[in-house]
Amino acid sequence: MSDHITITGLVATQPRHIVTSEGLPITSFRLASTQRRFDTSAGKWIDGETNWYTVTAFRQLATHTAESVDKGDRILVVGKLRIREWENDERTGTNIEVEGEAIGHDLTWGIGVFTRAVGAAISAESEEATEPTTAVAPQS
Amino acid sequence: MSDHITITGLVATQPRHIVTSEGLPITSFRLASTQRRFDTSAGKWIDGETNWYTVTAFRQLATHTAESVDKGDRILVVGKLRIREWENDERTGTNIEVEGEAIGHDLTWGIGVFTRAVGAAISAESEEATEPTTAVAPQS
Amino acid sequence: MSDHITITGLVATQPRHIVTSEGLPITSFRLASTQRRFDTSAGKWIDGETNWYTVTAFRQLATHTAESVDKGDRILVVGKLRIREWENDERTGTNIEVEGEAIGHDLTWGIGVFTRAVGAAISAESEEATEPTTAVAPQS
Amino acid sequence: MSDHITITGLVATQPRHIVTSEGLPITSFRLASTQRRFDTSAGKWIDGETNWYTVTAFRQLATHTAESVDKGDRILVVGKLRIREWENDERTGTNIEVEGEAIGHDLTWGIGVFTRAVGAAISAESEEATEPTTAVAPQS
Repeated sequence: MSDHITITGLVATQPRHIVTSEGLPITSFRLASTQRRFDTSAGKWIDGETNWYTVTAFRQLATHTAESVDKGDRILVVGKLRIREWENDERTGTNIEVEGEAIGHDLTWGIGVFTRAVGAAISAESEEATEPTTAVAPQS
Repeated sequence: MSDHITITGLVATQPRHIVTSEGLPITSFRLASTQRRFDTSAGKWIDGETNWYTVTAFRQLATHTAESVDKGDRILVVGKLRIREWENDERTGTNIEVEGEAIGHDLTWGIGVFTRAVGAAISAESEEATEPTTAVAPQS
Repeated sequence: MSDHITITGLVATQPRHIVTSEGLPITSFRLASTQRRFDTSAGKWIDGETNWYTVTAFRQLATHTAESVDKGDRILVVGKLRIREWENDERTGTNIEVEGEAIGHDLTWGIGVFTRAVGAAISAESEEATEPTTAVAPQS
Repeated sequence: MSDHITITGLVATQPRHIVTSEGLPITSFRLASTQRRFDTSAGKWIDGETNWYTVTAFRQLATHTAESVDKGDRILVVGKLRIREWENDERTGTNIEVEGEAIGHDLTWGIGVFTRAVGAAISAESEEATEPTTAVAPQS
Protein backbone atom coordinates (compact mmCIF):
# COMPACT_ATOMS: atom_id res chain seq x y z
CA MET A 1 0.00 0.00 0.00
CA SER A 2 2.75 2.35 0.99
CA ASP A 3 4.22 4.96 -1.35
CA HIS A 4 1.25 4.50 -3.66
CA ILE A 5 0.90 7.41 -6.10
CA THR A 6 -1.51 8.67 -8.77
CA ILE A 7 -0.19 11.00 -11.48
CA THR A 8 -1.46 12.64 -14.64
CA GLY A 9 1.07 14.22 -16.95
CA LEU A 10 2.79 14.72 -20.27
CA VAL A 11 5.07 12.05 -21.76
CA ALA A 12 8.34 13.94 -22.27
CA THR A 13 10.57 11.34 -23.95
CA GLN A 14 9.79 8.64 -26.49
CA PRO A 15 9.34 5.40 -24.47
CA ARG A 16 12.31 3.02 -24.60
CA HIS A 17 11.49 -0.67 -24.76
CA ILE A 18 13.90 -3.48 -23.98
CA VAL A 19 13.59 -7.19 -23.29
CA THR A 20 16.11 -8.52 -20.78
CA SER A 21 18.14 -11.67 -21.42
CA GLU A 22 15.69 -13.43 -19.09
CA GLY A 23 12.86 -12.39 -21.41
CA LEU A 24 11.38 -9.65 -19.22
CA PRO A 25 9.92 -6.72 -21.22
CA ILE A 26 10.63 -3.30 -19.67
CA THR A 27 9.43 0.09 -20.94
CA SER A 28 10.42 3.45 -19.46
CA PHE A 29 10.05 7.16 -20.21
CA ARG A 30 10.13 10.57 -18.55
CA LEU A 31 6.86 12.13 -17.43
CA ALA A 32 6.22 15.78 -16.55
CA SER A 33 3.37 16.51 -14.17
CA THR A 34 2.58 20.21 -13.97
CA GLN A 35 0.32 21.55 -11.27
CA ARG A 36 -2.29 24.09 -12.33
CA ARG A 37 -3.11 26.87 -9.89
CA PHE A 38 -5.37 29.93 -10.01
CA ASP A 39 -3.44 33.19 -10.09
CA THR A 40 -5.74 35.63 -8.31
CA SER A 41 -3.82 38.74 -9.44
CA ALA A 42 -3.93 37.64 -13.10
CA GLY A 43 -7.43 36.24 -12.72
CA LYS A 44 -6.72 33.02 -14.58
CA TRP A 45 -5.30 29.50 -14.25
CA ILE A 46 -1.57 29.25 -14.77
CA ASP A 47 0.99 26.46 -14.75
CA GLY A 48 2.65 25.89 -11.42
CA GLU A 49 5.81 23.93 -10.83
CA THR A 50 6.53 20.62 -12.54
CA ASN A 51 7.33 17.22 -11.02
CA TRP A 52 9.55 14.99 -13.19
CA TYR A 53 9.34 11.21 -13.00
CA THR A 54 10.81 8.17 -14.70
CA VAL A 55 7.86 5.83 -15.32
CA THR A 56 8.74 2.15 -15.71
CA ALA A 57 6.46 -0.70 -16.73
CA PHE A 58 7.11 -4.45 -16.80
CA ARG A 59 5.76 -7.51 -18.61
CA GLN A 60 2.51 -7.17 -20.60
CA LEU A 61 2.00 -3.56 -19.52
CA ALA A 62 5.50 -2.74 -20.84
CA THR A 63 4.80 -4.28 -24.24
CA HIS A 64 1.45 -2.53 -24.67
CA THR A 65 2.77 0.80 -23.38
CA ALA A 66 5.62 0.71 -25.91
CA GLU A 67 3.09 0.13 -28.71
CA SER A 68 0.59 2.72 -27.43
CA VAL A 69 2.34 5.67 -25.80
CA ASP A 70 4.30 8.38 -27.62
CA LYS A 71 6.16 11.50 -26.59
CA GLY A 72 3.63 14.31 -26.22
CA ASP A 73 0.77 12.06 -25.06
CA ARG A 74 -1.21 12.85 -21.95
CA ILE A 75 -1.49 9.84 -19.64
CA LEU A 76 -2.49 8.77 -16.17
CA VAL A 77 -0.34 6.45 -14.10
CA VAL A 78 -1.07 4.58 -10.89
CA GLY A 79 1.91 2.95 -9.23
CA LYS A 80 4.55 2.72 -6.57
CA LEU A 81 7.07 5.49 -5.97
CA ARG A 82 10.77 4.67 -5.68
CA ILE A 83 13.39 7.27 -4.84
CA ARG A 84 16.92 6.28 -5.75
CA GLU A 85 20.21 8.13 -5.28
CA TRP A 86 22.75 7.67 -8.04
CA GLU A 87 26.28 8.80 -8.67
CA ASN A 88 28.88 8.50 -11.35
CA ASP A 89 32.40 9.88 -11.59
CA GLU A 90 31.21 13.42 -12.05
CA ARG A 91 27.86 13.93 -10.40
CA THR A 92 25.35 12.66 -7.93
CA GLY A 93 21.60 12.92 -8.24
CA THR A 94 18.23 11.53 -7.36
CA ASN A 95 15.96 9.54 -9.61
CA ILE A 96 12.26 9.55 -8.85
CA GLU A 97 10.74 6.47 -10.37
CA VAL A 98 7.16 5.26 -10.59
CA GLU A 99 6.66 1.56 -11.22
CA GLY A 100 3.41 1.60 -13.15
CA GLU A 101 0.69 -0.78 -11.97
CA ALA A 102 -1.79 0.72 -14.41
CA ILE A 103 -1.24 3.17 -17.28
CA GLY A 104 -3.74 4.72 -19.69
CA HIS A 105 -4.22 7.72 -21.95
CA ASP A 106 -5.89 10.60 -20.11
CA LEU A 107 -9.27 11.03 -21.84
CA THR A 108 -9.64 14.56 -20.49
CA TRP A 109 -7.22 15.53 -23.27
CA GLY A 110 -8.28 13.47 -26.27
CA ILE A 111 -9.90 10.44 -27.88
CA GLY A 112 -8.62 6.91 -27.36
CA VAL A 113 -9.24 3.84 -29.51
CA PHE A 114 -8.65 0.58 -27.68
CA THR A 115 -7.94 -2.90 -29.07
CA ARG A 116 -7.79 -5.76 -26.66
CA ALA A 117 -4.69 -7.92 -26.91
CA VAL A 118 -5.28 -11.38 -28.37
CA GLY A 119 -4.59 -13.37 -25.23
CA ALA A 120 -6.71 -11.01 -23.19
CA ALA A 121 -9.50 -11.12 -25.79
CA ILE A 122 -9.81 -14.88 -25.50
CA SER A 123 -10.08 -14.84 -21.75
CA ALA A 124 -12.60 -12.06 -22.15
CA GLU A 125 -15.15 -14.39 -23.69
CA SER A 126 -15.92 -15.93 -20.35
CA GLU A 127 -15.80 -12.49 -18.85
CA GLU A 128 -19.23 -11.16 -19.78
CA ALA A 129 -20.08 -9.35 -16.59
CA THR A 130 -23.45 -10.39 -15.21
CA GLU A 131 -24.73 -7.94 -12.71
CA PRO A 132 -26.95 -9.47 -10.00
CA THR A 133 -30.40 -8.09 -10.78
CA THR A 134 -31.61 -7.76 -7.22
CA ALA A 135 -28.75 -5.44 -6.49
CA VAL A 136 -28.94 -3.27 -9.59
CA ALA A 137 -29.26 0.40 -8.81
CA PRO A 138 -31.09 2.47 -11.42
CA GLN A 139 -28.48 4.18 -13.56
CA SER A 140 -28.96 7.88 -12.99
CA MET B 1 -8.73 14.39 -0.71
CA SER B 2 -11.29 12.34 1.13
CA ASP B 3 -13.05 9.34 -0.42
CA HIS B 4 -10.49 9.29 -3.19
CA ILE B 5 -10.50 5.96 -5.05
CA THR B 6 -8.52 4.17 -7.77
CA ILE B 7 -10.21 1.39 -9.74
CA THR B 8 -9.44 -0.85 -12.69
CA GLY B 9 -12.28 -2.81 -14.22
CA LEU B 10 -14.50 -3.91 -17.06
CA VAL B 11 -17.03 -1.53 -18.66
CA ALA B 12 -20.31 -3.43 -18.27
CA THR B 13 -22.81 -1.18 -20.07
CA GLN B 14 -22.48 0.96 -23.16
CA PRO B 15 -21.77 4.53 -21.90
CA ARG B 16 -24.76 6.89 -22.01
CA HIS B 17 -24.03 10.48 -23.00
CA ILE B 18 -26.34 13.42 -22.41
CA VAL B 19 -26.00 17.19 -22.48
CA THR B 20 -28.09 19.02 -19.90
CA SER B 21 -30.25 22.02 -20.81
CA GLU B 22 -27.48 24.17 -19.28
CA GLY B 23 -25.04 22.65 -21.78
CA LEU B 24 -23.19 20.35 -19.36
CA PRO B 25 -22.01 17.07 -20.96
CA ILE B 26 -22.42 14.01 -18.71
CA THR B 27 -21.41 10.42 -19.48
CA SER B 28 -22.07 7.43 -17.26
CA PHE B 29 -21.78 3.63 -17.34
CA ARG B 30 -21.53 0.61 -15.05
CA LEU B 31 -18.10 -0.75 -14.17
CA ALA B 32 -17.28 -4.18 -12.73
CA SER B 33 -14.07 -4.49 -10.74
CA THR B 34 -13.22 -8.09 -9.96
CA GLN B 35 -10.54 -8.96 -7.44
CA ARG B 36 -8.10 -11.71 -8.38
CA ARG B 37 -6.87 -14.00 -5.62
CA PHE B 38 -4.62 -17.04 -5.48
CA ASP B 39 -6.52 -20.23 -4.66
CA THR B 40 -3.95 -22.33 -2.82
CA SER B 41 -6.00 -25.54 -3.07
CA ALA B 42 -6.44 -25.15 -6.85
CA GLY B 43 -2.92 -23.75 -7.26
CA LYS B 44 -3.98 -20.93 -9.56
CA TRP B 45 -5.35 -17.40 -9.69
CA ILE B 46 -9.13 -17.19 -9.67
CA ASP B 47 -11.69 -14.41 -9.77
CA GLY B 48 -12.79 -13.17 -6.40
CA GLU B 49 -15.86 -11.07 -5.69
CA THR B 50 -16.88 -8.16 -7.87
CA ASN B 51 -17.48 -4.52 -6.92
CA TRP B 52 -20.05 -2.71 -9.09
CA TYR B 53 -19.87 1.04 -9.66
CA THR B 54 -21.63 3.71 -11.67
CA VAL B 55 -18.87 5.84 -13.17
CA THR B 56 -19.85 9.40 -14.13
CA ALA B 57 -17.81 11.98 -16.02
CA PHE B 58 -18.51 15.65 -16.71
CA ARG B 59 -17.50 18.27 -19.26
CA GLN B 60 -14.61 17.51 -21.63
CA LEU B 61 -13.88 14.17 -19.96
CA ALA B 62 -17.54 13.18 -20.54
CA THR B 63 -17.40 14.01 -24.24
CA HIS B 64 -14.14 12.16 -24.85
CA THR B 65 -15.19 9.17 -22.75
CA ALA B 66 -18.40 8.81 -24.77
CA GLU B 67 -16.35 8.80 -28.01
CA SER B 68 -13.64 6.46 -26.65
CA VAL B 69 -15.08 3.90 -24.25
CA ASP B 70 -17.26 0.92 -25.17
CA LYS B 71 -18.88 -1.90 -23.28
CA GLY B 72 -16.28 -4.62 -22.78
CA ASP B 73 -13.31 -2.24 -22.54
CA ARG B 74 -10.84 -2.45 -19.69
CA ILE B 75 -10.25 0.93 -18.08
CA LEU B 76 -8.72 2.63 -15.07
CA VAL B 77 -10.56 5.35 -13.17
CA VAL B 78 -9.35 7.79 -10.54
CA GLY B 79 -12.06 9.75 -8.78
CA LYS B 80 -14.25 10.53 -5.82
CA LEU B 81 -16.60 7.96 -4.32
CA ARG B 82 -20.22 8.88 -3.62
CA ILE B 83 -22.63 6.53 -1.89
CA ARG B 84 -26.29 7.36 -2.41
CA GLU B 85 -29.41 5.69 -1.07
CA TRP B 86 -32.35 5.64 -3.43
CA GLU B 87 -35.91 4.46 -3.27
CA ASN B 88 -38.89 4.30 -5.53
CA ASP B 89 -42.39 2.96 -4.97
CA GLU B 90 -41.25 -0.62 -4.91
CA ARG B 91 -37.70 -0.87 -3.74
CA THR B 92 -34.83 0.80 -1.96
CA GLY B 93 -31.18 0.44 -2.79
CA THR B 94 -27.74 1.91 -2.75
CA ASN B 95 -25.89 3.41 -5.66
CA ILE B 96 -22.12 3.50 -5.51
CA GLU B 97 -20.92 6.21 -7.82
CA VAL B 98 -17.44 7.29 -8.83
CA GLU B 99 -17.10 10.80 -10.23
CA GLY B 100 -14.19 10.35 -12.60
CA GLU B 101 -11.36 12.86 -12.34
CA ALA B 102 -9.27 10.89 -14.81
CA ILE B 103 -10.23 7.93 -17.03
CA GLY B 104 -8.12 5.92 -19.46
CA HIS B 105 -7.96 2.53 -21.15
CA ASP B 106 -5.96 0.04 -19.09
CA LEU B 107 -2.90 -0.76 -21.20
CA THR B 108 -2.27 -3.98 -19.29
CA TRP B 109 -5.08 -5.44 -21.40
CA GLY B 110 -4.55 -4.00 -24.88
CA ILE B 111 -3.25 -1.38 -27.27
CA GLY B 112 -4.49 2.21 -27.23
CA VAL B 113 -4.29 4.79 -30.01
CA PHE B 114 -4.61 8.36 -28.76
CA THR B 115 -5.59 11.51 -30.67
CA ARG B 116 -5.39 14.80 -28.86
CA ALA B 117 -8.52 16.91 -29.04
CA VAL B 118 -8.23 20.02 -31.22
CA GLY B 119 -8.44 22.56 -28.43
CA ALA B 120 -5.98 20.62 -26.35
CA ALA B 121 -3.63 20.17 -29.30
CA ILE B 122 -3.31 23.90 -29.85
CA SER B 123 -2.47 24.60 -26.26
CA ALA B 124 0.03 21.77 -26.49
CA GLU B 125 2.28 23.72 -28.84
CA SER B 126 3.51 25.86 -26.01
CA GLU B 127 3.68 22.78 -23.86
CA GLU B 128 6.92 21.24 -25.03
CA ALA B 129 8.32 20.08 -21.71
CA THR B 130 11.85 21.35 -21.12
CA GLU B 131 13.55 19.40 -18.42
CA PRO B 132 16.14 21.38 -16.43
CA THR B 133 19.46 19.83 -17.48
CA THR B 134 21.18 20.15 -14.13
CA ALA B 135 18.46 18.06 -12.61
CA VAL B 136 18.23 15.35 -15.21
CA ALA B 137 18.69 11.89 -13.83
CA PRO B 138 20.10 9.28 -16.20
CA GLN B 139 17.20 7.23 -17.51
CA SER B 140 17.82 3.71 -16.30
CA MET C 1 -3.91 -1.82 -6.38
CA SER C 2 -7.48 -1.80 -7.51
CA ASP C 3 -10.32 -0.38 -5.43
CA HIS C 4 -7.82 1.38 -3.22
CA ILE C 5 -9.45 4.16 -1.17
CA THR C 6 -8.45 6.95 1.21
CA ILE C 7 -11.03 8.30 3.66
CA THR C 8 -11.19 10.76 6.54
CA GLY C 9 -14.25 10.70 8.74
CA LEU C 10 -16.05 10.45 12.03
CA VAL C 11 -16.27 7.15 13.94
CA ALA C 12 -20.02 6.67 14.34
CA THR C 13 -20.25 3.50 16.43
CA GLN C 14 -18.09 2.18 19.26
CA PRO C 15 -15.65 -0.30 17.65
CA ARG C 16 -16.51 -3.98 18.20
CA HIS C 17 -13.61 -6.33 18.77
CA ILE C 18 -13.74 -10.09 18.45
CA VAL C 19 -11.20 -12.90 18.20
CA THR C 20 -12.23 -15.79 15.98
CA SER C 21 -11.90 -19.39 17.09
CA GLU C 22 -8.79 -19.56 14.90
CA GLY C 23 -7.29 -16.72 16.94
CA LEU C 24 -7.75 -13.95 14.37
CA PRO C 25 -8.48 -10.52 15.93
CA ILE C 26 -11.10 -8.47 14.02
CA THR C 27 -12.31 -4.95 14.81
CA SER C 28 -15.09 -3.12 12.97
CA PHE C 29 -17.12 0.09 13.24
CA ARG C 30 -19.22 2.49 11.17
CA LEU C 31 -17.53 5.57 9.71
CA ALA C 32 -19.24 8.70 8.37
CA SER C 33 -17.35 10.73 5.80
CA THR C 34 -19.01 14.08 5.12
CA GLN C 35 -17.96 16.17 2.17
CA ARG C 36 -17.52 19.91 2.77
CA ARG C 37 -18.51 22.29 0.00
CA PHE C 38 -18.64 26.06 -0.37
CA ASP C 39 -22.18 27.39 -0.60
CA THR C 40 -21.83 30.49 -2.75
CA SER C 41 -25.30 31.81 -1.90
CA ALA C 42 -24.66 31.49 1.84
CA GLY C 43 -21.03 32.55 1.46
CA LYS C 44 -19.67 29.82 3.73
CA TRP C 45 -18.55 26.19 3.89
CA ILE C 46 -21.34 23.76 4.61
CA ASP C 47 -21.65 20.02 5.05
CA GLY C 48 -22.45 18.14 1.88
CA GLU C 49 -23.70 14.57 1.67
CA THR C 50 -22.31 11.78 3.80
CA ASN C 51 -20.77 8.46 2.76
CA TRP C 52 -21.23 5.63 5.27
CA TYR C 53 -18.74 2.78 5.54
CA THR C 54 -18.08 -0.26 7.68
CA VAL C 55 -14.36 -0.21 8.45
CA THR C 56 -12.79 -3.56 9.34
CA ALA C 57 -9.27 -4.26 10.60
CA PHE C 58 -7.50 -7.56 11.17
CA ARG C 59 -4.62 -8.88 13.28
CA GLN C 60 -2.36 -6.37 15.07
CA LEU C 61 -4.14 -3.39 13.52
CA ALA C 62 -7.45 -4.76 14.87
CA THR C 63 -6.10 -5.09 18.41
CA HIS C 64 -4.56 -1.60 18.47
CA THR C 65 -7.60 0.02 16.84
CA ALA C 66 -9.89 -1.51 19.49
CA GLU C 67 -7.68 -0.04 22.22
CA SER C 68 -7.25 3.34 20.53
CA VAL C 69 -10.36 4.37 18.63
CA ASP C 70 -13.67 5.49 20.18
CA LYS C 71 -17.00 6.64 18.85
CA GLY C 72 -16.71 10.34 18.03
CA ASP C 73 -13.02 10.21 17.03
CA ARG C 74 -11.82 11.66 13.75
CA ILE C 75 -9.64 9.20 11.84
CA LEU C 76 -8.05 8.55 8.49
CA VAL C 77 -8.23 5.16 6.82
CA VAL C 78 -6.37 3.76 3.83
CA GLY C 79 -7.64 0.46 2.52
CA LYS C 80 -9.46 -1.68 0.03
CA LEU C 81 -13.13 -1.15 -0.80
CA ARG C 82 -15.52 -4.10 -0.83
CA ILE C 83 -19.14 -3.78 -1.88
CA ARG C 84 -21.36 -6.61 -0.69
CA GLU C 85 -25.05 -7.24 -1.24
CA TRP C 86 -26.89 -8.80 1.67
CA GLU C 87 -30.39 -10.00 2.30
CA ASN C 88 -32.34 -11.49 5.13
CA ASP C 89 -35.97 -12.53 5.39
CA GLU C 90 -37.26 -8.99 5.32
CA ARG C 91 -34.89 -6.75 3.46
CA THR C 92 -32.01 -6.50 1.06
CA GLY C 93 -29.23 -3.98 1.15
CA THR C 94 -25.68 -3.09 0.31
CA ASN C 95 -22.76 -2.98 2.69
CA ILE C 96 -19.82 -0.81 1.76
CA GLU C 97 -16.80 -2.09 3.59
CA VAL C 98 -13.25 -0.81 3.81
CA GLU C 99 -10.62 -3.31 4.88
CA GLY C 100 -8.15 -1.03 6.64
CA GLU C 101 -4.50 -1.36 5.65
CA ALA C 102 -3.57 1.65 7.78
CA ILE C 103 -5.65 3.57 10.33
CA GLY C 104 -4.73 6.61 12.43
CA HIS C 105 -6.29 9.52 14.29
CA ASP C 106 -6.67 12.57 12.03
CA LEU C 107 -4.35 15.19 13.54
CA THR C 108 -6.18 18.00 11.76
CA TRP C 109 -8.80 17.62 14.49
CA GLY C 110 -6.83 17.05 17.67
CA ILE C 111 -3.76 15.89 19.57
CA GLY C 112 -2.58 12.27 19.54
CA VAL C 113 -0.31 10.53 22.04
CA PHE C 114 1.32 7.40 20.66
CA THR C 115 2.84 4.45 22.50
CA ARG C 116 4.59 1.82 20.48
CA ALA C 117 3.45 -1.71 21.15
CA VAL C 118 5.95 -3.88 23.07
CA GLY C 119 6.85 -6.20 20.23
CA ALA C 120 7.16 -3.30 17.84
CA ALA C 121 9.23 -1.34 20.35
CA ILE C 122 11.86 -4.07 20.58
CA SER C 123 12.26 -4.34 16.85
CA ALA C 124 12.52 -0.55 16.78
CA GLU C 125 15.91 -0.61 18.46
CA SER C 126 17.56 -1.79 15.31
CA GLU C 127 15.41 0.60 13.36
CA GLU C 128 17.23 3.88 13.93
CA ALA C 129 16.93 5.38 10.48
CA THR C 130 20.29 6.44 9.09
CA GLU C 131 19.90 8.81 6.22
CA PRO C 132 22.70 8.62 3.63
CA THR C 133 24.55 11.91 4.06
CA THR C 134 25.41 12.42 0.43
CA ALA C 135 21.76 12.35 -0.39
CA VAL C 136 20.47 14.59 2.38
CA ALA C 137 18.49 17.52 1.12
CA PRO C 138 18.54 20.59 3.35
CA GLN C 139 15.34 20.62 5.38
CA SER C 140 13.50 23.72 4.27
CA MET D 1 -5.93 14.87 -7.82
CA SER D 2 -2.58 14.62 -9.47
CA ASP D 3 0.59 13.56 -7.66
CA HIS D 4 -1.51 12.29 -4.79
CA ILE D 5 0.47 9.93 -2.53
CA THR D 6 -0.11 7.66 0.47
CA ILE D 7 2.84 6.77 2.70
CA THR D 8 3.49 4.91 5.93
CA GLY D 9 6.85 5.34 7.58
CA LEU D 10 9.16 6.19 10.44
CA VAL D 11 9.62 9.80 11.62
CA ALA D 12 13.39 10.29 11.33
CA THR D 13 13.89 13.81 12.71
CA GLN D 14 12.18 15.66 15.54
CA PRO D 15 9.48 17.83 13.88
CA ARG D 16 10.38 21.52 13.56
CA HIS D 17 7.55 23.98 14.13
CA ILE D 18 7.59 27.63 13.07
CA VAL D 19 4.99 30.36 12.71
CA THR D 20 5.62 32.75 9.85
CA SER D 21 5.42 36.53 10.28
CA GLU D 22 2.01 36.30 8.61
CA GLY D 23 0.90 33.92 11.37
CA LEU D 24 0.97 30.70 9.34
CA PRO D 25 1.99 27.63 11.39
CA ILE D 26 4.30 25.21 9.52
CA THR D 27 5.67 21.88 10.76
CA SER D 28 8.14 19.71 8.90
CA PHE D 29 10.23 16.57 9.45
CA ARG D 30 12.01 13.78 7.58
CA LEU D 31 10.18 10.51 7.02
CA ALA D 32 11.70 7.15 6.05
CA SER D 33 9.46 4.69 4.25
CA THR D 34 11.03 1.26 3.98
CA GLN D 35 9.56 -1.36 1.71
CA ARG D 36 9.30 -4.89 3.09
CA ARG D 37 9.86 -7.79 0.72
CA PHE D 38 9.98 -11.56 1.08
CA ASP D 39 13.46 -12.96 0.58
CA THR D 40 12.80 -16.44 -0.82
CA SER D 41 16.38 -17.65 -0.28
CA ALA D 42 16.35 -16.55 3.37
CA GLY D 43 12.73 -17.60 3.77
CA LYS D 44 11.70 -14.45 5.65
CA TRP D 45 10.61 -10.83 5.25
CA ILE D 46 13.46 -8.37 5.00
CA ASP D 47 13.76 -4.60 4.65
CA GLY D 48 14.01 -3.39 1.09
CA GLU D 49 15.14 0.04 -0.01
CA THR D 50 14.05 3.21 1.75
CA ASN D 51 12.32 6.29 0.34
CA TRP D 52 13.14 9.55 2.16
CA TYR D 53 10.66 12.43 2.26
CA THR D 54 10.31 15.85 3.84
CA VAL D 55 6.76 15.99 5.19
CA THR D 56 5.30 19.47 5.65
CA ALA D 57 2.03 20.45 7.30
CA PHE D 58 0.30 23.82 7.48
CA ARG D 59 -2.21 25.56 9.75
CA GLN D 60 -4.12 23.49 12.30
CA LEU D 61 -2.58 20.25 11.09
CA ALA D 62 0.88 21.80 11.62
CA THR D 63 0.10 22.82 15.20
CA HIS D 64 -1.35 19.45 16.16
CA THR D 65 1.41 17.50 14.42
CA ALA D 66 4.08 19.46 16.33
CA GLU D 67 2.33 18.58 19.61
CA SER D 68 1.69 14.94 18.69
CA VAL D 69 4.49 13.53 16.55
CA ASP D 70 8.01 12.68 17.75
CA LYS D 71 11.11 11.23 16.16
CA GLY D 72 10.75 7.45 16.11
CA ASP D 73 6.96 7.45 15.71
CA ARG D 74 5.28 5.41 13.00
CA ILE D 75 2.78 7.48 11.02
CA LEU D 76 0.67 7.49 7.90
CA VAL D 77 0.53 10.49 5.60
CA VAL D 78 -1.81 11.33 2.74
CA GLY D 79 -0.80 14.30 0.63
CA LYS D 80 0.56 15.88 -2.49
CA LEU D 81 4.06 15.14 -3.77
CA ARG D 82 6.38 18.00 -4.74
CA ILE D 83 9.80 17.44 -6.26
CA ARG D 84 12.14 20.41 -6.01
CA GLU D 85 15.68 20.87 -7.24
CA TRP D 86 17.95 22.95 -4.99
CA GLU D 87 21.47 24.19 -5.16
CA ASN D 88 23.83 26.16 -3.02
CA ASP D 89 27.44 27.17 -3.51
CA GLU D 90 28.73 23.68 -3.11
CA ARG D 91 26.13 21.16 -4.11
CA THR D 92 22.93 20.49 -5.96
CA GLY D 93 20.23 18.07 -4.96
CA THR D 94 16.61 17.09 -5.06
CA ASN D 95 14.13 17.49 -2.28
CA ILE D 96 11.09 15.22 -2.28
CA GLU D 97 8.38 16.88 -0.27
CA VAL D 98 4.93 15.70 0.75
CA GLU D 99 2.45 18.39 1.72
CA GLY D 100 0.34 16.53 4.24
CA GLU D 101 -3.42 16.73 3.80
CA ALA D 102 -3.97 14.20 6.59
CA ILE D 103 -1.48 12.77 9.11
CA GLY D 104 -2.01 10.22 11.87
CA HIS D 105 -0.13 7.69 13.98
CA ASP D 106 -0.07 4.26 12.32
CA LEU D 107 -2.08 2.01 14.65
CA THR D 108 -0.50 -1.11 13.17
CA TRP D 109 2.51 -0.25 15.33
CA GLY D 110 1.06 0.97 18.61
CA ILE D 111 -1.70 2.51 20.71
CA GLY D 112 -2.94 6.06 20.18
CA VAL D 113 -4.81 8.28 22.61
CA PHE D 114 -6.69 11.11 20.92
CA THR D 115 -7.93 14.40 22.38
CA ARG D 116 -10.03 16.61 20.18
CA ALA D 117 -8.87 20.20 19.97
CA VAL D 118 -11.08 22.71 21.78
CA GLY D 119 -12.38 24.50 18.72
CA ALA D 120 -13.05 21.21 17.00
CA ALA D 121 -14.73 19.80 20.11
CA ILE D 122 -17.30 22.60 20.20
CA SER D 123 -18.25 22.16 16.59
CA ALA D 124 -18.49 18.46 17.28
CA GLU D 125 -21.58 18.91 19.43
CA SER D 126 -23.71 19.47 16.39
CA GLU D 127 -21.88 16.69 14.68
CA GLU D 128 -23.54 13.62 16.17
CA ALA D 129 -23.73 11.45 13.09
CA THR D 130 -27.25 10.17 12.50
CA GLU D 131 -27.28 7.27 10.13
CA PRO D 132 -30.46 7.01 8.03
CA THR D 133 -32.18 3.91 9.40
CA THR D 134 -33.59 2.68 6.11
CA ALA D 135 -30.10 2.50 4.74
CA VAL D 136 -28.37 0.84 7.66
CA ALA D 137 -26.59 -2.33 6.72
CA PRO D 138 -26.23 -4.92 9.48
CA GLN D 139 -22.74 -4.60 10.91
CA SER D 140 -21.04 -7.87 10.15
